[in-house]
Amino acid sequence: MPYKTIKGGVCAPKGFLASSVSAGIKNPDSDRLDLTLLYSEDPCVSSGTFTTNRVKAAPVRVSQAHLRNNEIRGIIANSGNANACTGVCGVEDAREMAKMVAMKLGVRRREIGVCSTGVIGLPLPMERIRPHAETLVSTLKPRNGAEVARAIMTSDTRPKEIAITTEIDGRPIRIGACVKGAGMICPSMATMLCFVTTDADITRGCLDKCLSEAVERSFNCITIDGDMSTNDTVLALANARAGGPRITRGTKSCRLFLDALSFVLLKLAKEIVRDGERVTKFVTVEVKNARTFNDARKVAEAVAKSQLVKASWNGNDPNWGRVIHAVGYSRAPIREELIDIYYNNLPACIGGLVAQGTKLDDLRAIAAKKEFKIVIDLNLGKSDHTIFSSDLSPEYIDFNRNEYAYWNQARKEGII
Amino acid sequence: MPYKTIKGGVCAPKGFLASSVSAGIKNPDSDRLDLTLLYSEDPCVSSGTFTTNRVKAAPVRVSQAHLRNNEIRGIIANSGNANACTGVCGVEDAREMAKMVAMKLGVRRREIGVCSTGVIGLPLPMERIRPHAETLVSTLKPRNGAEVARAIMTSDTRPKEIAITTEIDGRPIRIGACVKGAGMICPSMATMLCFVTTDADITRGCLDKCLSEAVERSFNCITIDGDMSTNDTVLALANARAGGPRITRGTKSCRLFLDALSFVLLKLAKEIVRDGERVTKFVTVEVKNARTFNDARKVAEAVAKSQLVKASWNGNDPNWGRVIHAVGYSRAPIREELIDIYYNNLPACIGGLVAQGTKLDDLRAIAAKKEFKIVIDLNLGKSDHTIFSSDLSPEYIDFNRNEYAYWNQARKEGII
Repeated sequence: MPYKTIKGGVCAPKGFLASSVSAGIKNPDSDRLDLTLLYSEDPCVSSGTFTTNRVKAAPVRVSQAHLRNNEIRGIIANSGNANACTGVCGVEDAREMAKMVAMKLGVRRREIGVCSTGVIGLPLPMERIRPHAETLVSTLKPRNGAEVARAIMTSDTRPKEIAITTEIDGRPIRIGACVKGAGMICPSMATMLCFVTTDADITRGCLDKCLSEAVERSFNCITIDGDMSTNDTVLALANARAGGPRITRGTKSCRLFLDALSFVLLKLAKEIVRDGERVTKFVTVEVKNARTFNDARKVAEAVAKSQLVKASWNGNDPNWGRVIHAVGYSRAPIREELIDIYYNNLPACIGGLVAQGTKLDDLRAIAAKKEFKIVIDLNLGKSDHTIFSSDLSPEYIDFNRNEYAYWNQARKEGII
Repeated sequence: MPYKTIKGGVCAPKGFLASSVSAGIKNPDSDRLDLTLLYSEDPCVSSGTFTTNRVKAAPVRVSQAHLRNNEIRGIIANSGNANACTGVCGVEDAREMAKMVAMKLGVRRREIGVCSTGVIGLPLPMERIRPHAETLVSTLKPRNGAEVARAIMTSDTRPKEIAITTEIDGRPIRIGACVKGAGMICPSMATMLCFVTTDADITRGCLDKCLSEAVERSFNCITIDGDMSTNDTVLALANARAGGPRITRGTKSCRLFLDALSFVLLKLAKEIVRDGERVTKFVTVEVKNARTFNDARKVAEAVAKSQLVKASWNGNDPNWGRVIHAVGYSRAPIREELIDIYYNNLPACIGGLVAQGTKLDDLRAIAAKKEFKIVIDLNLGKSDHTIFSSDLSPEYIDFNRNEYAYWNQARKEGII
């Protein structure tokens, strides 16, 4: 591991505080954390990347607006309700969430980002959220990072966080991050949220560039069920507490920061896959020697997203026929007679034909592992791309068959 | 029903003969039909549409070549082995299949089309196929249509065939067709094959146009698991036995023939969905008032293919949140605040918000039906598109987890 990991998650970088409460949004009768505030003592440079789904949740719109001409230094987030498909009222609710803590913190509303994750289409229960503004602000502490990771969980089975330290320009800086995902669990229950904090002194331009590139290298290289949530958000805050010199675009320091940030996000991205809903396998799909990067990506995505390929992984089945079939419909130019397919280092298909000399039992043993790699060599060019994927289990479908219970509960509580 | 259905399947039109045998390709110990010959007593005008998968099975390549500068008047087809990913030997085997019956029939090899469906990557067991050439030809009969439908089945639970008669230019013509599908069952076990026969007198140009347009309106409007096989083939033979006048492009007769052909193919396309692997629901996804036809198609496909939407159907869950979320990631331009979603005629979402006044139990009752319709009104333009889809069940995944047994069997038999 090229970086030193440290404790503290999003509160590991200097000057970041957090607090979390159980507001009963997930379930009025449970004491699971579901409302959290992350805040920097100092003003920040900030950046964000958001879902490209054209149906955007209210908090996504509000956070985008807040970031447009401002720097945010804090984030309020809830789980249990996505505040999506909630119209004008939803936007008002998201604004109010930011405003209620901004007032107590003595900052402007636009300095607070807002995130929500949970059920789509239900109004946010503001009457359960409002009473906690005071507590959220008064209990802010530099040791509460782990609770942020916990408060944003929905069907995740475990909190996912990391913090590292590295030297840039001879000065130690820290990057902390937490994430929730669980496999686009289901778009109406889940979402990918990621909060990144750092005490590095960095310009907005450089942070923007590093964040979008690191997201490209990490969260955009994973797939669980191929769906894209209405709420996906990555927010990064940099408060410069580690001291200068300032990191600017196009410098060696910028490259070092990008690498460190990419390491952090890729680590969490892989954790999302491993903690995917009812996932039993972590499979790396590596496409080699495509004509262009875009071709490599198309092939990797077609294979990594194919229901039938994923079903075969679930069954420990080294089914290269399904893999090559997905390569074929990826719309990337390929030549069937040049394609080699490996499970780890063992050839399953050479030149588009079954690999003579490979024992089926040996392939089977690899496909039965909890983690393995499928290498697809197109032998056409020089472009590579890798995607991290999971299997598709009968249990996943079963788990996602019915959210009716949630709606029924909402009706009972008089929300709809 | 606008057309009169008649008996006889692909042998209902005059002058078509068929024969089928059990060659032990599916399983040497079973007597299931798995090799069939369809043949017209007279020369035909012929047309075909094929998979767009870039990995093409040998029989697809051979049939395409035969159709290029020739007219085919017969089809030999086997199930149990797809003859895909079998390289040069596969092409030789496919040619030999055509040749062995062509010789006995006294026609050229290029007058016979070839189709295979089954496992990918295994060589075709020609030693089991060759001995049946004589029987296939000597047992050709005009009453054997139903056996063709049966001989091409893989994981289909029932044969799927239809024949109709209609009048064109005051003369009765007949169209017969059979199909196999079962849900792209799994690309390495399945495929969509469809054989169409007619005794209409039609030009090649008109048949080409009618077939491609009818396929567009039928097989291109269904989805079960979103995968596209290496072997998909539709072949149409027209032998003119019903007599002239000849149907040519751009005429009213051509339109009448197109409508009749579309009726036949849509009927079979829907049957494929209903007989999809472990399918419990038949769901019509109707997109209305998109800006362009392409937008309507994108939205319909995104919804009809979404794993999570399909899982909700399996669970009788009227989960419009997942539907609108798939609309959002379809990449078609939409305006969230204009979207209405209905289950049958009942509004679930109006203007992007939960439909007030609709009882959840009423929506639930619709989603619990075996067949229902989801209407997505984008309220943006005037273009519509409809796709016929199925649910996704835990049993489907379970069914498709493991083909290892087939490979193991092949190894035991010394094929690989």
